[in-house]
Amino acid sequence: MTRIAFQDLYAEAYTHCYGCGRNNPHGYQLKSYWDIPSVQTIAHIRPEFHYTGGVPDHLYGGLIASLLDCHGTASAAAFKSHVLGIVFDGSENLVRCVTGSLNIQFIRPVPVNTELVLTGRLLKIEDRKIQVTLSLSANNIECAKAEMLAIQIKSP
Amino acid sequence: MTRIAFQDLYAEAYTHCYGCGRNNPHGYQLKSYWDIPSVQTIAHIRPEFHYTGGVPDHLYGGLIASLLDCHGTASAAAFKSHVLGIVFDGSENLVRCVTGSLNIQFIRPVPVNTELVLTGRLLKIEDRKIQVTLSLSANNIECAKAEMLAIQIKSP
Repeated sequence: MTRIAFQDLYAEAYTHCYGCGRNNPHGYQLKSYWDIPSVQTIAHIRPEFHYTGGVPDHLYGGLIASLLDCHGTASAAAFKSHVLGIVFDGSENLVRCVTGSLNIQFIRPVPVNTELVLTGRLLKIEDRKIQVTLSLSANNIECAKAEMLAIQIKSP
Repeated sequence: MTRIAFQDLYAEAYTHCYGCGRNNPHGYQLKSYWDIPSVQTIAHIRPEFHYTGGVPDHLYGGLIASLLDCHGTASAAAFKSHVLGIVFDGSENLVRCVTGSLNIQFIRPVPVNTELVLTGRLLKIEDRKIQVTLSLSANNIECAKAEMLAIQIKSP
């Protein structure tokens, strides 16, 4: 099992995302990996103090959505790439997906400056449409979950 | 009609949001207003070049979600405050809402460095639950829309 992040396997033209692009030095550079290969994906991140919501110490909803969005499209890309037989060792690019829809449930406040764990699971692949479920936890407690419809875009 | 932003009418304790808090100097400081008082809300913002998605020149999905989230909770707060008879002239605080769920449809790519227009409309108020619909447009074309369930939180 390789430990190259999915986002580091995107084709060069598709690596500018503020949330997870290796070629966006301003952004969060979220990195998603296999947790259980071909079954569950995982990402870790510790958002800094200033990403507070209305109340100090709670993470703002927009960053929760951003992390779910980037981990979701990366997970969808990984699941679809796996089905296509693409290898994850750096010799090939993964497919690239964009978000069609993202439905988020905010379950409880998310603390800042705490390691967050994002996971993703495959629901369904139908040609270029990939559906995944996503979860965001802090201190082993699920704080948000989401369902995403991701769309595979053309290779650059 | 006053032109004080909804977010500038939140109680001091609730003004730290990275997306829209007047007391978060690091953040976007989104400002939402009445467009048609008590009927439609509006906000304008021009995201900088570095907030790209995977493809340069397209805004990353996380910022689209963030803007919809902050404009949504502000719109919900405004609609509920209006029903409660709160005046928007700076003499009173609006109620404050957090997001329960946010369902986003990404319709088409959003350009960066372009003025975006966000609008919000009320669907339903049921005690502390406020449902709103949201829209994000660029160059007069709708690029994303969303439905939010916002929850009114206690006064600080």
